[in-house]
Amino acid sequence: MARIAVVAGDGIGPEVVEPARKVIDAVLPGVTATEYDLGAARYHRTGEVLPDSVLDELAGHDAILLGAVGDPTVPPGVLERGLLLKLRFAFDQYVNLRPSRLWPGVPGPLAAVKPGEVDLVVVREGTEGLYAGAGGSLHRDTPAEVATEESLNTRHGVERVIRDAFARAGRRERRKVTLVHKTNVLTHAGSLWARAFEAVAAEHPDVATEYQHVDAAAMFLVTQPQRYDVVVTDNLFGDILTDIAAAVTGGIGLAASGCINPEGRYPSMFEPVHGSAPDIAGQGVADPVAAVLSAALLLDQLGHADAAARVTAAVATELAGRTPGAPVRTEEVGDRLAGYAVG
Amino acid sequence: MARIAVVAGDGIGPEVVEPARKVIDAVLPGVTATEYDLGAARYHRTGEVLPDSVLDELAGHDAILLGAVGDPTVPPGVLERGLLLKLRFAFDQYVNLRPSRLWPGVPGPLAAVKPGEVDLVVVREGTEGLYAGAGGSLHRDTPAEVATEESLNTRHGVERVIRDAFARAGRRERRKVTLVHKTNVLTHAGSLWARAFEAVAAEHPDVATEYQHVDAAAMFLVTQPQRYDVVVTDNLFGDILTDIAAAVTGGIGLAASGCINPEGRYPSMFEPVHGSAPDIAGQGVADPVAAVLSAALLLDQLGHADAAARVTAAVATELAGRTPGAPVRTEEVGDRLAGYAVG
Ligand SMILES: CC(C)[C@H](C(=O)O)[C@@H](O)C(=O)O
Ligand SMILES: CC(C)[C@H](C(=O)O)[C@@H](O)C(=O)O
Repeated sequence: MARIAVVAGDGIGPEVVEPARKVIDAVLPGVTATEYDLGAARYHRTGEVLPDSVLDELAGHDAILLGAVGDPTVPPGVLERGLLLKLRFAFDQYVNLRPSRLWPGVPGPLAAVKPGEVDLVVVREGTEGLYAGAGGSLHRDTPAEVATEESLNTRHGVERVIRDAFARAGRRERRKVTLVHKTNVLTHAGSLWARAFEAVAAEHPDVATEYQHVDAAAMFLVTQPQRYDVVVTDNLFGDILTDIAAAVTGGIGLAASGCINPEGRYPSMFEPVHGSAPDIAGQGVADPVAAVLSAALLLDQLGHADAAARVTAAVATELAGRTPGAPVRTEEVGDRLAGYAVG
Repeated sequence: MARIAVVAGDGIGPEVVEPARKVIDAVLPGVTATEYDLGAARYHRTGEVLPDSVLDELAGHDAILLGAVGDPTVPPGVLERGLLLKLRFAFDQYVNLRPSRLWPGVPGPLAAVKPGEVDLVVVREGTEGLYAGAGGSLHRDTPAEVATEESLNTRHGVERVIRDAFARAGRRERRKVTLVHKTNVLTHAGSLWARAFEAVAAEHPDVATEYQHVDAAAMFLVTQPQRYDVVVTDNLFGDILTDIAAAVTGGIGLAASGCINPEGRYPSMFEPVHGSAPDIAGQGVADPVAAVLSAALLLDQLGHADAAARVTAAVATELAGRTPGAPVRTEEVGDRLAGYAVG
């Protein structure tokens, strides 16, 4: 039976992880879950972000379910670099999977886009690019200060994530992959991405392809999100585009994500895209749908496609029954979702 | 009298530059304009992108009015790096100014945003960051290939563009500047930007400030574009955010931009954000509004605030009178705009 590590984290993290666990238990009884206390609270208490011993223990699990970490009281970068990115890199989670659907029942912000019309997934590279941490600075706090950030891209890293995107597209109805980069300015990395894309595309004659510059893609995500099926892109572009995709499909409150090591050599990690939302924490009003959809991605990755599909269907039922604007109660939503999923 | 260099360029470039010139002539008679043949056509004919002699001649003008350059037949990067970016860097155009307004009469894509509610300007850094061209690659076309792109940021370059943003905010009604970066991941460059921002903000106690990560800003531009007044950000983030801002205010067909050297040591350059649109070139159906609004930015930069305001008011009249979806005729729109502007 699957062994899951749970990092509930800060703010609304614990509140939304609870329903996610309930739903997993409902569709796949017998999963064991071990809780790990990581995040802003632990950092403030002990100064620790991610002790090596905890990293080792996490490595022994089949997957990680994460709520949210972070708090305005922690300096920028400490938890991001020390915990979230550390896990993505240590566990070689090179596929950062972010599906976006405009669910029936959810009022999207776009006047011309109807529920059901948007169903895309961004396959964001997760272990390279500007996230490599290859930067530095000189002459800090003087007029001569200079700071650099370097985007590192390898054929190895680029090709494997593109391969994953094509494999996913091959299992979808529209079978289309859009590569997003900025080849006209970032000519070196852009050329590497474009050539790797062409090479993998040649192995998939059944998958349609297109290329867009990141600025154009950002625009088309707003004007015609329907046009996308699978989007593959680099780490930073993926960070930005997935938030736009979330925005046009009802907000990050509904957006799920997986940081996946497809070969299963290391545990994959699943987390809602929303953060710890300290402003509404502790009130029981956070929407657990993003966490529950992340749990569905987790189940799917562990080979329980059927259980995953039941969770996704439960979410569809829940959302279709909602009155736009009506407040949600975290626990009630969790109970309903668990009920729909087994029912 | 002002001496303007005109680079009409490719595709619809010449078509939209024509009305822009007509409008300039109408509000500021006596401007001399010299045409320069640059772009895809010249590149194909002669292999030249931007000869040094032309660069020198351009330097002798007060401003450059650019239509659009580019064509799918030119390899990515050739005209972008060799012409557009070359000009921005050679003429130290460190302020890339991109206003976005949702004009009455223009149907925006957002259901909850009404015309008149969005009026923001992005001050995008134009001479640093990932656009520095500091990248390279090794072992090309082998499995060992690696490609890098480096973002270079200097206190000098960052502070001066932030200073410009605050000066602009001080002249606007809401007096608010939002810094957009990704300080939690790009910790070196992010820290430089954040500290420079704080320092300049301290000199402007009358201007309100906020900070947002680029992914959050991309999302809020879609869900609440009304919240922004002046946005200051780095070169690549600005590239992406301005296309989103254009999308939520009716599309890049209406988006103007200026690449400005505020001190006037070098000529500033003004161009519509849309490209050469080869698919509709030569038909006389391109909307010249973005080019005309770029001409208004040009007039303003040259100290003719009054003439600029008349052009902007003419655009407002034109747009308010349009039937959404009705086709436009480039020349007719130009004639109407010139008429409104003098009228
Ligand atoms: C918190 C931050 C490090 C992270 C990222 O930039 O990847 C977040 O924005 C996300 O998208 O998961
Ligand atoms: C054509 C390209 C070099 C340019 C940029 O990336 O700056 C364009 O996208 C823009 O926004 O002006």
